[in-house]
Amino acid sequence: MPEDGGVSRNDVGDTTDAGASRARNDESGLEAEGPRRPVTVVGAGLTGASWAGLFAAAGLEVRLQDVDEKRLTAAVDRAGAAARFLVENGLADATAAERGIGLLTATTELAEAVADAVHVQECVREDLALKRRLFAAADRAAPSDALVCTSSSGLSISEIQTAAAHHPERCLAAHPYNPPHLVPLVELAPGRLTTPDALTRAAAFFAGVGKEPVTLTHDLPGYIANRLSAALWREAVDLVLRGVATVEDVDTAVRCGPGLRWAAMGPHLLYDLGGGEGGIRGHMEHLAASKEGMLRDLATWTAFPAEAAETLDAGLVREKAGRGYAELTAERDSLLVSFMRARHRLRR
Amino acid sequence: MPEDGGVSRNDVGDTTDAGASRARNDESGLEAEGPRRPVTVVGAGLTGASWAGLFAAAGLEVRLQDVDEKRLTAAVDRAGAAARFLVENGLADATAAERGIGLLTATTELAEAVADAVHVQECVREDLALKRRLFAAADRAAPSDALVCTSSSGLSISEIQTAAAHHPERCLAAHPYNPPHLVPLVELAPGRLTTPDALTRAAAFFAGVGKEPVTLTHDLPGYIANRLSAALWREAVDLVLRGVATVEDVDTAVRCGPGLRWAAMGPHLLYDLGGGEGGIRGHMEHLAASKEGMLRDLATWTAFPAEAAETLDAGLVREKAGRGYAELTAERDSLLVSFMRARHRLRR
Repeated sequence: MPEDGGVSRNDVGDTTDAGASRARNDESGLEAEGPRRPVTVVGAGLTGASWAGLFAAAGLEVRLQDVDEKRLTAAVDRAGAAARFLVENGLADATAAERGIGLLTATTELAEAVADAVHVQECVREDLALKRRLFAAADRAAPSDALVCTSSSGLSISEIQTAAAHHPERCLAAHPYNPPHLVPLVELAPGRLTTPDALTRAAAFFAGVGKEPVTLTHDLPGYIANRLSAALWREAVDLVLRGVATVEDVDTAVRCGPGLRWAAMGPHLLYDLGGGEGGIRGHMEHLAASKEGMLRDLATWTAFPAEAAETLDAGLVREKAGRGYAELTAERDSLLVSFMRARHRLRR
Repeated sequence: MPEDGGVSRNDVGDTTDAGASRARNDESGLEAEGPRRPVTVVGAGLTGASWAGLFAAAGLEVRLQDVDEKRLTAAVDRAGAAARFLVENGLADATAAERGIGLLTATTELAEAVADAVHVQECVREDLALKRRLFAAADRAAPSDALVCTSSSGLSISEIQTAAAHHPERCLAAHPYNPPHLVPLVELAPGRLTTPDALTRAAAFFAGVGKEPVTLTHDLPGYIANRLSAALWREAVDLVLRGVATVEDVDTAVRCGPGLRWAAMGPHLLYDLGGGEGGIRGHMEHLAASKEGMLRDLATWTAFPAEAAETLDAGLVREKAGRGYAELTAERDSLLVSFMRARHRLRR
């Protein structure tokens, strides 16, 4: 599951075999012709609700499943709000979203939720045994061609997918970046039993709902984005603990420097352009020594220093200057939306 | 000097003592009342021209200095174009920029260039001996209260400033992020002889021209932003070399995931929000183990693998898909501008 702690304590609600032999009527679930097959979101925490909102905003029929009815009710509301937020901010089509919001349903029964599904997106808490039980049940009850994806950030799809006794080859990791309805990245990773076809179909499905999928050749801890974030954050924490700069100034340095540029282009392309007409080769010729000097000087610890949480917390109190969680998340999301819109306007 | 290779091969054009005893008439050079003192940019490469464009766009009188007259002529043109670009994109006031562009001058004489200056921004190539000669000469010729800043990314201000025999205390590092007229970050770092007052005045000066200054307690290789970038990039390179993902997918993962978020907020605040109401402490309690798993798995090399440049270059050819340097830098700058404007619109 992603990093916002939006876990669901879902468990298998039903284990009957329902749809394993259903023929597929539509590869992506997105085509205009013919009946569109539903998308199932398993686990109604914050991440599940956000995924459901994204899928609904694209006009898809979404079935939310969780064993907790209260959580389901809240998630349906949240998903609708997320879809409407996308429409209000010009990031989703109003007609499609209206259709999707109208088709949003919730159930505690997993088999019912995945029957006919073209895509199953699991987002329950990081518990291998639980995820394996859900994958086993979804594999039995979903059409044989449905993709079954875990949103897990910390568990291995190779270890999860072996629970899918019938069709482990359609199981993969599809790891979002929070919040999933706003941040376009989704990282696709195969387990040892996943077929290339499943990865290709998953990439098409996610592109169809406006995501920007990337595909790994195998799963590894943190996929791409969380690994790169961890590498950066270790040094960001270290600079604060060493007293080089305040929490706020480290955050400002990222937000007003490399972060701003990385929202425009990735690091490889930026360094290529930084090399002028000489490109990445010119860049490395001129700057490898200087960069290696930094690399030798970077933090190398692999366990967080004991004082990290307290020191960061104290610095964050100053940075936040009285602004609360709701205000800051709204500010974050407004900025994300405005950057996304700016990108869309510039897209040829 | 910053990372675009925009070096100047400037050298000391003049070493006469001219302005050391001048009284200061204005602390930041930005006040509306009284004559405003000029800002001097030493070194007319790409970085110098970009700095000059930023200062001119703020309505300041800018004197560009370089020993190469051809480079000076090109830099004056470039600086004017940069200032006009900021106006055209709503990031600078047209009247102020018109004044600044009209006051842009160029000279090969350092003493003439720094006479009366309130601020000297050195941006010559990364050559300690050269920078020391320029600091010695600027220190002799500039008013005693003028700030003298190096744009160096790789050299130590502590080693540079001792060449300023009269007033080393007003010498500091003011490291931009490229391109300086567009990316708001400037990192201020003191040398061993720099006074807190000089840092405070420098922060006020840069804030006055629209930069977002951050202040380090001492200088260290890469300051903040390039260290964090190096930490991230090592892993980004490693993932490509290990065959985990393509150059393009690694770039997409950054651009559509953490990069997008880091343009909104820095990593500490984002992780604080990721902890929900529990904040950074909650985040670390829940995710320290998972993050430590990644940290143990990250690349640790401190010298670039021999095949890095070639492998990255091949991947970049695919990513660029025929788009050339001019097209891509224009796209990068258009995106940066649109993100900056989006931020300005949301600023309370």
